[in-house]
Amino acid sequence: MEFSISQIAAMLGGEVTGDGSEKINMLAKIQDAKKGQIAFLSNPKYEQFIYTTNASAVIVKKDFQAKRDISCALIRVDDPYLSFTALLEEYHKLISFQKTGIEQPSFIGENSTTGSNIYRGAFSYIGNNVKIGNNVKIYPQVYIGDNTVVGDNTILHPNVKLYAGTRIGANCVIHGGTVIGSDGFGFAPQEDGTYKTIPQLGNVLIEDNVTIGANTTIDCATLFGDSTTIRKGVKMDNLIQIAHNVEIGNNTVIAAQTGISGSTKIGENCVIAGQVGIAGHLVIANNTSVGAQSGIGKSTEEGQKLFGSPVLDVKAFFRSYAVFKQLPDLNYRLRQLEKKVDGLPNPVIESSSNGAD
Amino acid sequence: MEFSISQIAAMLGGEVTGDGSEKINMLAKIQDAKKGQIAFLSNPKYEQFIYTTNASAVIVKKDFQAKRDISCALIRVDDPYLSFTALLEEYHKLISFQKTGIEQPSFIGENSTTGSNIYRGAFSYIGNNVKIGNNVKIYPQVYIGDNTVVGDNTILHPNVKLYAGTRIGANCVIHGGTVIGSDGFGFAPQEDGTYKTIPQLGNVLIEDNVTIGANTTIDCATLFGDSTTIRKGVKMDNLIQIAHNVEIGNNTVIAAQTGISGSTKIGENCVIAGQVGIAGHLVIANNTSVGAQSGIGKSTEEGQKLFGSPVLDVKAFFRSYAVFKQLPDLNYRLRQLEKKVDGLPNPVIESSSNGAD
Amino acid sequence: MEFSISQIAAMLGGEVTGDGSEKINMLAKIQDAKKGQIAFLSNPKYEQFIYTTNASAVIVKKDFQAKRDISCALIRVDDPYLSFTALLEEYHKLISFQKTGIEQPSFIGENSTTGSNIYRGAFSYIGNNVKIGNNVKIYPQVYIGDNTVVGDNTILHPNVKLYAGTRIGANCVIHGGTVIGSDGFGFAPQEDGTYKTIPQLGNVLIEDNVTIGANTTIDCATLFGDSTTIRKGVKMDNLIQIAHNVEIGNNTVIAAQTGISGSTKIGENCVIAGQVGIAGHLVIANNTSVGAQSGIGKSTEEGQKLFGSPVLDVKAFFRSYAVFKQLPDLNYRLRQLEKKVDGLPNPVIESSSNGAD
Repeated sequence: MEFSISQIAAMLGGEVTGDGSEKINMLAKIQDAKKGQIAFLSNPKYEQFIYTTNASAVIVKKDFQAKRDISCALIRVDDPYLSFTALLEEYHKLISFQKTGIEQPSFIGENSTTGSNIYRGAFSYIGNNVKIGNNVKIYPQVYIGDNTVVGDNTILHPNVKLYAGTRIGANCVIHGGTVIGSDGFGFAPQEDGTYKTIPQLGNVLIEDNVTIGANTTIDCATLFGDSTTIRKGVKMDNLIQIAHNVEIGNNTVIAAQTGISGSTKIGENCVIAGQVGIAGHLVIANNTSVGAQSGIGKSTEEGQKLFGSPVLDVKAFFRSYAVFKQLPDLNYRLRQLEKKVDGLPNPVIESSSNGAD
Repeated sequence: MEFSISQIAAMLGGEVTGDGSEKINMLAKIQDAKKGQIAFLSNPKYEQFIYTTNASAVIVKKDFQAKRDISCALIRVDDPYLSFTALLEEYHKLISFQKTGIEQPSFIGENSTTGSNIYRGAFSYIGNNVKIGNNVKIYPQVYIGDNTVVGDNTILHPNVKLYAGTRIGANCVIHGGTVIGSDGFGFAPQEDGTYKTIPQLGNVLIEDNVTIGANTTIDCATLFGDSTTIRKGVKMDNLIQIAHNVEIGNNTVIAAQTGISGSTKIGENCVIAGQVGIAGHLVIANNTSVGAQSGIGKSTEEGQKLFGSPVLDVKAFFRSYAVFKQLPDLNYRLRQLEKKVDGLPNPVIESSSNGAD
Repeated sequence: MEFSISQIAAMLGGEVTGDGSEKINMLAKIQDAKKGQIAFLSNPKYEQFIYTTNASAVIVKKDFQAKRDISCALIRVDDPYLSFTALLEEYHKLISFQKTGIEQPSFIGENSTTGSNIYRGAFSYIGNNVKIGNNVKIYPQVYIGDNTVVGDNTILHPNVKLYAGTRIGANCVIHGGTVIGSDGFGFAPQEDGTYKTIPQLGNVLIEDNVTIGANTTIDCATLFGDSTTIRKGVKMDNLIQIAHNVEIGNNTVIAAQTGISGSTKIGENCVIAGQVGIAGHLVIANNTSVGAQSGIGKSTEEGQKLFGSPVLDVKAFFRSYAVFKQLPDLNYRLRQLEKKVDGLPNPVIESSSNGAD
């Protein structure tokens, strides 16, 4: 990247205050930026840094008014954060992975087809009857089982494993080591204490624009024709467990190490924090928000904000937890009160206290 | 699969009510089934669906009595669920993975032997002095270190990693990305604040009929000659952590994301839910049941049902948790009572309240 | 290993009591040891075993005084445990992995260099512009992306995945399936409910003497030039999640399945147990100790010992938890007291109880 401040302002539809001729070669945080770099100021908490930054330019809000002298150029835009990420994205495209073609050795089975402009890394494996779209990037050591479909522009990072029959949409990104389509955890207890495996015959369906982190696991559905389903735009982090027959609704976000048990249906636009556990056969309503390490054992209603294990309304949880911290004191106060009241002469009570609670 | 309803009834030892001549080509859930498909009815909750299902046949209990007209054929058996899973299994065998032989390139070291009828996928690696039984399926990109033994009929899914010296029994299934035999987490603190690695010289022993999910990790034992041991019939889910020197007893079931710390011994026929944590050097008795997200810091007694972090008896936990939810109210009531009692004229109390609790 | 007891004593700088001529061929625990094996006694709890052990020799403290007859030889040293681990280490070197050279097929890109005495296993992948030090062991199926640096003596176990740009120091050990450098979990919410991916342009920096367990994930930093950083001597277990821009200080130890959210800075010499969750943008002070399954939502101060979710001081947590167990009883006692006090004739109270709490 080597654009002038004025050129960048033009790209962003912004207006320059100061010298627009300087060249920019990198993006940085306002507190760390050096000469030749561009930063942004969105959160007023960081305003202090604009007076001392070494950045050559800072992207600010249209109506930003400096309280002191500023030595860098400003680019005034509607939303500095959005403009900055737009720049990041452009930069990313410039530097990002441009390999195409087929590295050897790699393996492709019978009746499998691949689209145009794809990358197939060394030691990647494609089984039989697989259909790979255009511009797909298959990193080294990826495994793609038989009868799998992968949509256009999707990126499979090193060693992603797609079991046979998996269907992945377009514009997805799946990070290294993630396993998709492993058997659901289904075992029927026998009279002698052993367990019999219930065959898992379904698959996993991942729609468009889904991102899945590293070393995550998504099990296939139990019955043939059924799919564990991840809907459009879902964003999942690392080390997440999705059990058989789960469905996750559009644009739901799930942070790392969360686990979702079998047959649970998660709604759209939910935000689920890290290390959350959700029991099986539940319905989590749209727009549910779940705090970190929470445990959900019951279905939820739209828009609930939950916390705790088992979960409560987040505010109710913290009100109870505030008292939990004082429990030894509460216990002491109760004891004191009991002693006081025991010391009172009170014939009236005999009958009323002599019953079930 | 293309059998008539009568043929299927014969296979299951069941009796047909209705037309047994129709052909069945798929298994399905009673609420989803279409013409040509077979479903089952076991749980009375689902009885409503039998009156509206499009299934051609439904497997029901011998003594099932319809309350309204039914348009499909019935197959009457002792246990509809068991019969259905038996069918699933037959179906699974028909459609399941039948690859055998050796795909190239694959790697096999010196003095290693493989049994008959095995599959060795491309990019799989077998070290030196390895012994692989008959009918073993080694998917692509599996790693099998030196001196490892794998028993008959065992399936190693893509990219399973067996460190050197691992011993796996017969009829095991290990899912993709699972690591078996990595070093135990042992470090001796030094005076300068650094840690010295304690060499981990043992191995992992997995007995027959064990199933292990995807991306799970099982560390080797510390001392040479010792084994982290998974006994017969254990069923483990995805993303589970088993530390060094752990032993897990026969037919114990462990759900996803649970972690078991070093040297803990888990009994037989335990049921351990997901995201449970168990501390090190404990003995978990046979038939212990542990609820999701629980944390165990002490050894348990046979047949206990536990929940919470740290765990309590499950009923005790929920009784306490019911009050936890009311803590702000409890606190308020206590405060009111204190005010009331403070307002009382009671010279008697002075002495009794003036002591340690 | 075939050394006499006297030879071993000389190696350890210890003194023999009893017959030093017997040959030792294995190390074992005192309660399990057989003839020809050597054990150690450090914890007095195990002293009973020294009177019955079949070990040929036991390493004991210099001033150990037997209370009964002992049939084995003793080697007296300053610290039996340290001496034993020193022996373990020597033994480990003798038996441990000695492969060197390049197994085929393996892949190496352009402008990449490798030091002397390295092992490159079959199906390992090295991209372009990679720099590998001396004595590095790259097991089969390892992935090393472009522009990566790996220091001397570092061991990358099977299927470790280093995304492009990762920098690993010397003397590190990284276990199987671990993913280093995957994209940070950063998405900007859009007005239509979808999320836009924030490009992740930074990398991961791992300093010297770091050990990382199996199937762990470490995300890269967001901005170009920034690094998610693991400092010298850090020891991390299996299935840990480290988010983007996290920094972990020297000699901090983290047990399995713990997750650390984005931009959090962990101090030096912390001890973090298993299944802990730490929120983002926090500062965890040096020498912080965190119990298993704890959840941290606020920055900590040096030397704190924490437990619970959300965390409290460990002692405070257990004091509160002791009362939590009695909550149903507490509730009952409060109810009884209310009944008693309600039965009292007390005109004084009317006004004082009639207010906000």
